[in-house]
Amino acid sequence: MTEATRRGLLGSTLASTLAAAALAGSGPSAAAAGAAPVEPQAPGFYRYRVGDVRVTAVTDGANTMPLPERFVLNADRADVSAALTADFRDGATLTVPFTPLVIETAGRRVVIDTGNGEAAFLASGGAVGQFHTNLKAAGFDRAAIDAVVISHFHGDHVNGLLTPEGKPAFPNAEILVPEPEWAYWMDDGAMSRAPAGRMQDGFRNVRRVFDGLGRKVTPYAWEREVVPGLTAQGTPGHTPGHTAFLLASGRDSLFVQSDVTNVPVLFARHPGWHVMYDQDPAMAEATRRRVYDRIATDRTLLQGFHYPFPAAAHLERTADGYREVLVPWSPVLR
Amino acid sequence: MTEATRRGLLGSTLASTLAAAALAGSGPSAAAAGAAPVEPQAPGFYRYRVGDVRVTAVTDGANTMPLPERFVLNADRADVSAALTADFRDGATLTVPFTPLVIETAGRRVVIDTGNGEAAFLASGGAVGQFHTNLKAAGFDRAAIDAVVISHFHGDHVNGLLTPEGKPAFPNAEILVPEPEWAYWMDDGAMSRAPAGRMQDGFRNVRRVFDGLGRKVTPYAWEREVVPGLTAQGTPGHTPGHTAFLLASGRDSLFVQSDVTNVPVLFARHPGWHVMYDQDPAMAEATRRRVYDRIATDRTLLQGFHYPFPAAAHLERTADGYREVLVPWSPVLR
Repeated sequence: MTEATRRGLLGSTLASTLAAAALAGSGPSAAAAGAAPVEPQAPGFYRYRVGDVRVTAVTDGANTMPLPERFVLNADRADVSAALTADFRDGATLTVPFTPLVIETAGRRVVIDTGNGEAAFLASGGAVGQFHTNLKAAGFDRAAIDAVVISHFHGDHVNGLLTPEGKPAFPNAEILVPEPEWAYWMDDGAMSRAPAGRMQDGFRNVRRVFDGLGRKVTPYAWEREVVPGLTAQGTPGHTPGHTAFLLASGRDSLFVQSDVTNVPVLFARHPGWHVMYDQDPAMAEATRRRVYDRIATDRTLLQGFHYPFPAAAHLERTADGYREVLVPWSPVLR
Repeated sequence: MTEATRRGLLGSTLASTLAAAALAGSGPSAAAAGAAPVEPQAPGFYRYRVGDVRVTAVTDGANTMPLPERFVLNADRADVSAALTADFRDGATLTVPFTPLVIETAGRRVVIDTGNGEAAFLASGGAVGQFHTNLKAAGFDRAAIDAVVISHFHGDHVNGLLTPEGKPAFPNAEILVPEPEWAYWMDDGAMSRAPAGRMQDGFRNVRRVFDGLGRKVTPYAWEREVVPGLTAQGTPGHTPGHTAFLLASGRDSLFVQSDVTNVPVLFARHPGWHVMYDQDPAMAEATRRRVYDRIATDRTLLQGFHYPFPAAAHLERTADGYREVLVPWSPVLR
């Protein structure tokens, strides 16, 4: 490693965090640490405007794994691998990025989804759980966040609500959650009927997170404004209460799709493919087809939680689906 | 502007530079300042590996202008505008980004092209001339740059060789220039025969820049290694000595295309279109068709000076040209 390399890396906030964490040693998450540290990238935030609202996309990192045998429930691994290779990627692995947002609207700083949480940062060697570090790099103090809006209750969206010590990560924020999602996951009957494994783990994780907040949340209804300019759109299937959002300001708008698709190279290109994380895959597909048809027709700007950072894109129709057209990075704020 | 906005902006190096420049007042470039300051984006650098070589793409910013009547010499403005609109952009303006590189190879820190220069930073209100600021943000000290390799002698590639005071911006670097480019632009006969306007301005600017360096440069030949692993590829047409580069390390390679195309949305999609900056448009088109055919066939990773930041892409063949597939941003160094 050259001097410049070392200086470059040590100059980055992520590297400092990793180093500090390594020194700190025995925190609850350090105990779980095992992955080799990854070398950090440039600070992962990107700003743009939607009317009067400033949007900041803040990466939580990305998870790279061997391509699972059934990442797509209704397609052969070979076909999924070929779709990745056709897009100039490694067909043997899959990379899933995570991109929470901050919107500044009507004088309020609002976070939408929270990533995998800082405990995951150490456990993954820095690959994921970057949200809080990048949020700080973008100039946001977590204590100054006024509201956190959650799209659904999977761990990559809610785990960042807590610090590694299990305390509220946004101590002064109102936590807004989809009413049907809250009803489902907090229902002891639904939990008792859930199959063992991933679903049971999911229920336990949801309760761990919200118990850490003393269950102090504000459920919000679909088709209503959650915060000024941000309307909740019921988009069930991925989970029972999965929610997308339409942000509108002046003549501009942005569709925050949450998990209407997972990575677009697979699920925008092939809207009939079902990701292994969908709880009701057929309903998720119907939702996806309905939403993407509208977005493509209206040429609406879209922000996708699992799109490549900065995760803003438009949708172009193809013969059998859609192709994501990433917004060109602007080196100045637009 | 909210408090968080202000903190976010003031936290950025670019904002500090703008503020410091505004306070400094009367430098040679401040005198030329006129454009309203733009709000800065996140630090504009992005790292990846090519074999053992670390590549850092460093944005110099982007120039946004009303779409000229003849930006494409051999296409109507309406067709060019339609091509932009089809790609979800504003059809009335054109944005041209600039992305110099740093490569760290065999213990040497090598800059490839230098952007519009810091004087342009103030004159454009921060829109362009960001290279030196972002280079610093990426952890590179300009005094520790060992070599600067220039692809051709247009101002957006060479002006960053000088400080706003006209001094060498990389005081300890060897400056490597294409031999045929040096021969052409430093030839007094060629200058005297050049038409008035842009070409005469170009000659004057080249001499201003290299006179600022005491004409202390090392001309390099095509088809030879310029620095370890980086081979110069003669790609004339855009200028007489226009050079691209092949970076090779282990089994990895990267084609640094310089200005084989200007913005890919126009000239990769339509390789027969001629940009107004081409000195010999027919030769530039022949070069482009030859190079892009090879890159697409070999599926080589490409770095494009005028591609959207971070400007790394692959080429997919289409019915009548190529489509650029931008490399997905990796939140960790790969």
